[in-house]
Amino acid sequence: MTLTDSPPDVFHLSREAAAERDRVDPLASCRDLFLLPADVLYFDGNSLGPLTRAARERVREVTERQWGEDLVRSWNLHGWIDLPRRVAAKIAPLVGAAADEIAVTDSTSVNLFKLLAAALALRPERRVILSETAQFPTDLYMIQGLAELLDGRCEPRLVEPEGLLEALDDDVAAVCLSHVRYKDSTLLDMAAVNRAARGRGALTVWDLSHSAGALAVDLEGCGADFAVGCGYKFLNGGPGAPAFVYVARRHQEAARTPLAGWLGHEDPFLFDLDYRPAPGVERFLCGTPPVIALAALDAALDAFAGVDLAALRAKSVALGDLFLELLRRRCPQVGIACPEDGRRRGSHLALSHPEGYAVVQALVARGVVCDFRPPDVMRFGLAPLYLRYADVWDAAAALADVLETRAWDDPRFRRRGKVI
Amino acid sequence: MTLTDSPPDVFHLSREAAAERDRVDPLASCRDLFLLPADVLYFDGNSLGPLTRAARERVREVTERQWGEDLVRSWNLHGWIDLPRRVAAKIAPLVGAAADEIAVTDSTSVNLFKLLAAALALRPERRVILSETAQFPTDLYMIQGLAELLDGRCEPRLVEPEGLLEALDDDVAAVCLSHVRYKDSTLLDMAAVNRAARGRGALTVWDLSHSAGALAVDLEGCGADFAVGCGYKFLNGGPGAPAFVYVARRHQEAARTPLAGWLGHEDPFLFDLDYRPAPGVERFLCGTPPVIALAALDAALDAFAGVDLAALRAKSVALGDLFLELLRRRCPQVGIACPEDGRRRGSHLALSHPEGYAVVQALVARGVVCDFRPPDVMRFGLAPLYLRYADVWDAAAALADVLETRAWDDPRFRRRGKVI
Repeated sequence: MTLTDSPPDVFHLSREAAAERDRVDPLASCRDLFLLPADVLYFDGNSLGPLTRAARERVREVTERQWGEDLVRSWNLHGWIDLPRRVAAKIAPLVGAAADEIAVTDSTSVNLFKLLAAALALRPERRVILSETAQFPTDLYMIQGLAELLDGRCEPRLVEPEGLLEALDDDVAAVCLSHVRYKDSTLLDMAAVNRAARGRGALTVWDLSHSAGALAVDLEGCGADFAVGCGYKFLNGGPGAPAFVYVARRHQEAARTPLAGWLGHEDPFLFDLDYRPAPGVERFLCGTPPVIALAALDAALDAFAGVDLAALRAKSVALGDLFLELLRRRCPQVGIACPEDGRRRGSHLALSHPEGYAVVQALVARGVVCDFRPPDVMRFGLAPLYLRYADVWDAAAALADVLETRAWDDPRFRRRGKVI
Repeated sequence: MTLTDSPPDVFHLSREAAAERDRVDPLASCRDLFLLPADVLYFDGNSLGPLTRAARERVREVTERQWGEDLVRSWNLHGWIDLPRRVAAKIAPLVGAAADEIAVTDSTSVNLFKLLAAALALRPERRVILSETAQFPTDLYMIQGLAELLDGRCEPRLVEPEGLLEALDDDVAAVCLSHVRYKDSTLLDMAAVNRAARGRGALTVWDLSHSAGALAVDLEGCGADFAVGCGYKFLNGGPGAPAFVYVARRHQEAARTPLAGWLGHEDPFLFDLDYRPAPGVERFLCGTPPVIALAALDAALDAFAGVDLAALRAKSVALGDLFLELLRRRCPQVGIACPEDGRRRGSHLALSHPEGYAVVQALVARGVVCDFRPPDVMRFGLAPLYLRYADVWDAAAALADVLETRAWDDPRFRRRGKVI
């Protein structure tokens, strides 16, 4: 993509200044770990992180050499059976957990079900699972599915975000929230919610899908009880990568998973008739793990090796601040639907425009890949490991151009039907 | 592997006769679809099916070109979102179902949980889930996990196989059985069990892990209600491949899944706050699917295109009969722990020997890959798509040699620790 530089209002908003920030960026070299197409500016790492060189090699190795040549012997020879544990140890430091508080398994949705059921069982005298309307829908559906199954033993309580703390009463067994909201990118104050929940005797179940890998989550430090997270967004594990669960050590002995699969058994290869949960968080493993996908995630996580999470977060905020400042000047018709204060924002921007759907399609057609969420939100993911300040500048310029030239007003772009 | 031909007792048991059967085998050309190492005789397709050329290419394509270059756009561009449906359409004819009775998703264990909960809800006045001690442990654990979650609403009833029909009383909501037992390879009479269950008002939930892809399952024809199956055994989908569920059409409107994930929603991309199940079996989809693994399974299933399932089954039985007849003559010290009548046997053999663990390790060290299940069972998977009669002859000869020479009596082979 080439874009002519518009005369800057002020120097620090020029493309030249953006390029200079890239030159001194301490994370700049991380970009080389990724295989990004030359003609794409990728602002959708919040939906699907890109392929790393390491993941490409590992997928080949695991598929072609391990599965292909060593076949079933690879469970032992190549340690497939230990893969969930190895991946857990890489995710743990990104979310402020110990390695033995993380289990890598199943999907975010399935894992949420396990944890909600576990939390409810730890509060036998309470029935309510509290969440907010800004929560990602699958999380709400899992609560609803559990409630339907438990028929009266579980009651979903869904409130507008501003009413959450008020709705946190003594009937609440668990509060289920996203650390960063999927649509408007609000970063919740996890410590404050944990404190409030604990004060009312409730447990917290966090969804880290939009924060893990984008900022330093501090689960232990701020007293979270349970969490799930997604492997294919900022962790770059590949489409539909396995997800993870976090169970604080203080709950591990008592917490039970209803999805009592054999790999969560104390001794799976005894083939015993009775389920006995594995000690610790590994009881939250379930069926046979998807080895190729796990291996891709394992390799992708090496992109975080040695990365200072404070620097990662600082860059994420700076990329967002730059994008917003450019938009304020060049695209006043675009609404800012995410927090303007970087400290309260996750690692994606949410912008609103009545023709947001078509605008996103027009941008994607130009190689600026971002996404749309109904009714009018355009999301731009800002993954600090591979995005450059100059990319942000170019994306803002492309957005300005699409709006100025009404490039979005084209039947190709207005026709609905794209699913993701 | 080269083995000198022992003088045959009778011609039809000679290696030459076995090789002749391979020359006229109508399925012989299927072997070329698989990438089998030259130094391996692979008798563990009942645990992990081998890599096909097609799966190797698809994994590369999906990882490197689709994920790597087209990134998130691949959900639309390459139809990732439709992959579960495409794979379902390929599995359906193998199990006697219509394409819209199959959903491909999650693991066998997780899917079993969904179906057990669905079946229980369809029989609100009943509490018992009946199974047998020969069932694969993860299935039993999922029943136990559901029972613990439902606290009195669900009661596991576990009986010895011979007591099953007697235990099928009016309290039974669902009977959960394996079509082919994992350890002793008994092929159950699915139609008879379905009839008996229906006669008592109970539903059936079949685990097809050891039958799908090895013989013509006829779910619809014999009146099954629900089923799950495994993608990585005889379907060759790769380690930890996605599993599938079957829901007979007559139950689809009423059956509800407790794992109400967004991809089972009527309109996932509406991001609605309320769960409304998708019509039909697709409500049993849950979270974001593991795309690379699904694509591998999709490609692997093409090995069944045009295959006559009656011929597949006939060859499976013939391979097993040959193996058993050779063993009866050459290894009388080996116990036959599976049905000797091929019509009552699945597609693997179960042989017993007090030193079975070490014997299996000694065979694996010679490139005859089979597996062990406690306390003393050696399993030999007979996948008719790629195994040859001569392979069976060679494996029997290797087993005879290991036993005659006591090659198993070696500390390397007796040391426990292999997990799968």
